[in-house]
Amino acid sequence: MSAIKLYHSPISPNARRVRIFLAEKDIKVEIVPVDLGAKEQFSDAYRAINPRLQVPALVLEDGTSITEVPAIWRYLELVNPSKPLLGTTAKEQGVIAMWERRIELDGFAAVMEAVRNTVAGLKGRALSGPHAYEQIPALAERSRERIVNFYADLNTRLETSKYVAGDTFSVADITALVTIDFATVGANLAIPKEHAATQRWYDEVSTRPSAKA
Amino acid sequence: MSAIKLYHSPISPNARRVRIFLAEKDIKVEIVPVDLGAKEQFSDAYRAINPRLQVPALVLEDGTSITEVPAIWRYLELVNPSKPLLGTTAKEQGVIAMWERRIELDGFAAVMEAVRNTVAGLKGRALSGPHAYEQIPALAERSRERIVNFYADLNTRLETSKYVAGDTFSVADITALVTIDFATVGANLAIPKEHAATQRWYDEVSTRPSAKA
Repeated sequence: MSAIKLYHSPISPNARRVRIFLAEKDIKVEIVPVDLGAKEQFSDAYRAINPRLQVPALVLEDGTSITEVPAIWRYLELVNPSKPLLGTTAKEQGVIAMWERRIELDGFAAVMEAVRNTVAGLKGRALSGPHAYEQIPALAERSRERIVNFYADLNTRLETSKYVAGDTFSVADITALVTIDFATVGANLAIPKEHAATQRWYDEVSTRPSAKA
Repeated sequence: MSAIKLYHSPISPNARRVRIFLAEKDIKVEIVPVDLGAKEQFSDAYRAINPRLQVPALVLEDGTSITEVPAIWRYLELVNPSKPLLGTTAKEQGVIAMWERRIELDGFAAVMEAVRNTVAGLKGRALSGPHAYEQIPALAERSRERIVNFYADLNTRLETSKYVAGDTFSVADITALVTIDFATVGANLAIPKEHAATQRWYDEVSTRPSAKA
């Protein structure tokens, strides 16, 4: 029987969201690199694993593919319930899912939009997936406004909350950490100097061993 | 003790995703309308419920707000496990979450983008939420390409699958149904005539009693 496989790329921020999750929970899976530079994600072999042509993808022992980061997390948490990162009670699970999604839609997606509508190598690939879309300069510009607003909203939240979704570390923190590192490197927008609450939080989460994943 | 409340609007497609879920599972909650036409979502009272200024929002008996459709679904399913719509086994839950998200990102979000970047009444409100963003004409145009691609991909899937996520009705079908009705009315893009598989599926799901919700 073959082991569970995670198809990933070291340079994919979405794959990092899963790698940090695995590290926090001490889950071992077989790690299979997909060479995005060589466009391996567009190969027929990879299309059979994920028709959206994205990493990460989790392939179970029976061959079932699970893609999309929150779906991969859900599967892994149900199979490995210790050290929960999606919450335990119904209320915790709802609140964590809410905060994680806010961070993703307002922050992570904005950074992705900035990068995909700017980088020369992504011309004609402004949205990831199987379809070709041209870059839109006005969208590149708007995405930077969105990232600025994301940082402000996140700092407001962290002024009254230890972690993004409350008192405990969760997937909402994972997405926020990956978003900030991606914004810093990909869009040259680091944490604003005056955002003390975000910096206090970042100093902690970015030094957890899982952050190296 | 006060009951659980769902803040919604009859014209919000996101709120409809929750109303159909409630109808399928026979869950009763107190329904509180938010008058989007009168901009009630921008009021201080509503901001305290959802700082992203969107419907739907679920407010629990202890006052906790849960917003974001998948988070509301997660809470409701955990508290009301019968007639599951998010799957039961870990594999089912992962696969359903994956398909629901694909439909949302490729379909629902594209229709929302089309409407928000086109409708005169949404000038300066091209993204929902607390921040003002101008409409982008090139984005309005691209969103229509995305909807066309969404329809093609959905039909391919439904040629080999009874429901969107497999053999049983799930939240992936709810989001797909709401997306198609929204695209038809909001973007004047109905199911293409040649998409027999999608039409077969639509004829079934749109005549379930829950579709009236």
